[in-house]
Amino acid sequence: MEQAKKYIKENKDRFLDELFGLIRIPSISSIADHKKDMLKAAEYWKETILKAGADKAEFFPTDFNPVVYGEKIIDPKAPTVLVYGHYDVMPVDPIELWKIPPFEPTIKDGKIWARGADDDKGQGFMHAKAFETMVQTKTLPCNVKFMIEGGEEMGSPGLAKWCAENKEMLKADIILVSDTSMIAPTIPSITTGLRGLAYWEVEVTGPNKDLHSGLFGGAVANPINVLAKMINDMVDEDGHITIPGFYDDVLEVSLEERKKMAEAPFNVEAYKKAIDVEELYGEKGYTPSEHTGIRCTFDVCGIWGGYTGEGAKTVLPSKAHAKISSRLVPNQNNEKIMQLFKAHFEKVAPKYVKVKVECLHGGQAYVCPIDIPAYKAAEKAYQAVYNRMPVPVRSGGSIPIISTFEDILGLKSVLMGFGLESDAIHSPNENFPLEQFFNGIETITHFYKHYAEIMK
Amino acid sequence: MEQAKKYIKENKDRFLDELFGLIRIPSISSIADHKKDMLKAAEYWKETILKAGADKAEFFPTDFNPVVYGEKIIDPKAPTVLVYGHYDVMPVDPIELWKIPPFEPTIKDGKIWARGADDDKGQGFMHAKAFETMVQTKTLPCNVKFMIEGGEEMGSPGLAKWCAENKEMLKADIILVSDTSMIAPTIPSITTGLRGLAYWEVEVTGPNKDLHSGLFGGAVANPINVLAKMINDMVDEDGHITIPGFYDDVLEVSLEERKKMAEAPFNVEAYKKAIDVEELYGEKGYTPSEHTGIRCTFDVCGIWGGYTGEGAKTVLPSKAHAKISSRLVPNQNNEKIMQLFKAHFEKVAPKYVKVKVECLHGGQAYVCPIDIPAYKAAEKAYQAVYNRMPVPVRSGGSIPIISTFEDILGLKSVLMGFGLESDAIHSPNENFPLEQFFNGIETITHFYKHYAEIMK
Repeated sequence: MEQAKKYIKENKDRFLDELFGLIRIPSISSIADHKKDMLKAAEYWKETILKAGADKAEFFPTDFNPVVYGEKIIDPKAPTVLVYGHYDVMPVDPIELWKIPPFEPTIKDGKIWARGADDDKGQGFMHAKAFETMVQTKTLPCNVKFMIEGGEEMGSPGLAKWCAENKEMLKADIILVSDTSMIAPTIPSITTGLRGLAYWEVEVTGPNKDLHSGLFGGAVANPINVLAKMINDMVDEDGHITIPGFYDDVLEVSLEERKKMAEAPFNVEAYKKAIDVEELYGEKGYTPSEHTGIRCTFDVCGIWGGYTGEGAKTVLPSKAHAKISSRLVPNQNNEKIMQLFKAHFEKVAPKYVKVKVECLHGGQAYVCPIDIPAYKAAEKAYQAVYNRMPVPVRSGGSIPIISTFEDILGLKSVLMGFGLESDAIHSPNENFPLEQFFNGIETITHFYKHYAEIMK
Repeated sequence: MEQAKKYIKENKDRFLDELFGLIRIPSISSIADHKKDMLKAAEYWKETILKAGADKAEFFPTDFNPVVYGEKIIDPKAPTVLVYGHYDVMPVDPIELWKIPPFEPTIKDGKIWARGADDDKGQGFMHAKAFETMVQTKTLPCNVKFMIEGGEEMGSPGLAKWCAENKEMLKADIILVSDTSMIAPTIPSITTGLRGLAYWEVEVTGPNKDLHSGLFGGAVANPINVLAKMINDMVDEDGHITIPGFYDDVLEVSLEERKKMAEAPFNVEAYKKAIDVEELYGEKGYTPSEHTGIRCTFDVCGIWGGYTGEGAKTVLPSKAHAKISSRLVPNQNNEKIMQLFKAHFEKVAPKYVKVKVECLHGGQAYVCPIDIPAYKAAEKAYQAVYNRMPVPVRSGGSIPIISTFEDILGLKSVLMGFGLESDAIHSPNENFPLEQFFNGIETITHFYKHYAEIMK
């Protein structure tokens, strides 16, 4: 593996330059105006894979943005690794909180600062460069397939269908993904669980037009006040979600497993300090790590209604809106949960308003067993680079497509993440440490070596 | 009075043209960008008063926009009427709901459609034209003073101070204002009570930056969820406001007066149909007319926070904001109420958030006795034009400066409103019936005649 290490070192600057080219494309999948940027980013990935040494790479249309697929088959009998990543990124607002232009990658304090620096341009690109490294140093021991999509931040619309239609082409032994984080640069970890997701947009309509709050206020229900009440009523004083049936399918985690999880380092004071809150919140009876790892949430992601401009306008508004999401845990069916909320919200709406609930994207939770060959290979790879066995952790995040891959392709995914909590993904000033980027590339080359050996 | 009626008829089109010139100036006081328009509108008013026959008219600077003051003194012994109006208007958003450009007055279906058509350019202008009519037909029996300000929609900042500094100049027997409405074109009414107003902007901060709702959700309080709960908790199930001390100073209206008020026509089905709600809301133990006339409110005028753009972005936001107003009733002190809410909101905020409360503008409630000479003169004036005695009504709206006038100048105001409920003031598609505009001018000329006679 010395060859690979040397190659990475010699090509450091070029690797970064190439990553920056990808980052500069503002490929925000949730904003229709960026449609052209999606194609540019896909094209960039295709060229990257081809130049790295793939036998072929091409675009596949889906119902949403195209998937970039590429492959290199070294030996039909060798194990096949299917690399998954995404070229789309989150929106950048609130833009005023960015210290640098979000699509002009900047190196400062040993980190790359930009939207997508980590999620998932930085992390995804490590696979392209690890692949290039192994091809160029003639150390590639597995077949490699790349599947890089453009809709992950939107819940991967169209990808499940595309996978189902291309099952043969996507045949592999394992899916490898870098789109998660590790505990700290000194404490590597592998994400073995992901939460699922349900997402809704609700609209509450009171009167059919904005009214004068003096002439009508007091006699006509205010849709913002009503929405506030409805949101409040969805969670009780103990932090339990009150939607009937919400917890019915939850696979409760055993006390034994909870004890094991509790061994992962967690400094509550440092955690609070980092986000500047005096107290943490959370469902009664669980620890903060459990709140994010194994319990459901009910979070309003956005709310708007009435007058939000400068100054003091009095108005009794016609409408109020909210975007609401729930993180789900293993065995909860996101489609069922989406319908449960919709039915409940419609049912509890008082007669003085009308409500509409739109179910947006969602996804199932996921669990990766820690005794499969790919997990073992990943453990060894981290150990080689970080000199420490990685800790298996349950993450609170969601990558809805991961459980879909299991359903459709019958493949488990190993989530070799190199992000850090401080990377501020989805937030202003997203960043990714250079050290993690280069260590990640090296760790991935080790994975291939160990995986090929274990699979022999 | 036939002369006056004839003059109004002959000059109808010119009166409208001149009003339209005023309406075309987008004098939105709450938006700093419109500062120049405020001066234009003030200039327009000054010219209007001068041309109508005033002895003088000029600008007076205040801490906010200038006041236009003009006067015509026909006889130091004659009674003096101080006309109050405002040249500023409300913002126009949501702009997409307007069927015509808000600052391009359009006549359709017998109405003027535009921002300010009623509130208060249309209604204010009636006084300029009634004054012109009386001067030109040599029937003006009183001294007249005009005080037209540019900040009413912002709570008249600077006007109280200006009044205090100009008490001598503003000496009068009564203040006359057209900035309210009447029950229907066939049922004239005079507003004898106005609610007060308190207005706040609140900010709830959770974590110091937007967080990934998967990685942190469940362990970190979401400021939107918290704001929703805090808003909800301010009003109980019976519609009573829960802020300690909120009702302490409320002057309860006697059962006898409530019975009299109940005689005013109110068609609940028509009311609900007009605003398309299935049920009305309201504080337990009171009727809809009482909810708007004699009871306090707690209405969220605007709310915003988190992701409000296109698509489904998952985020645990750092901040949530709301603009909140309370309509107040006689004897509640708006300054005291503003502080009560601020202290309570800060006190009940859970430790996992930080809150800020900004007190914006407010005003005291007001009551006009129905046995003073000016009220009697107003009654006769309506009767002359509308052939029916006007009903005294308590309005739910607020004109905070009216109670301030009483405090500082020691003058009562008579609120001769000609607006209709369907005028959609403060809302998209504001309008004002032509018939009300011209009848209003005529009614005002009758007021002067009767007032001079009663005051002899």
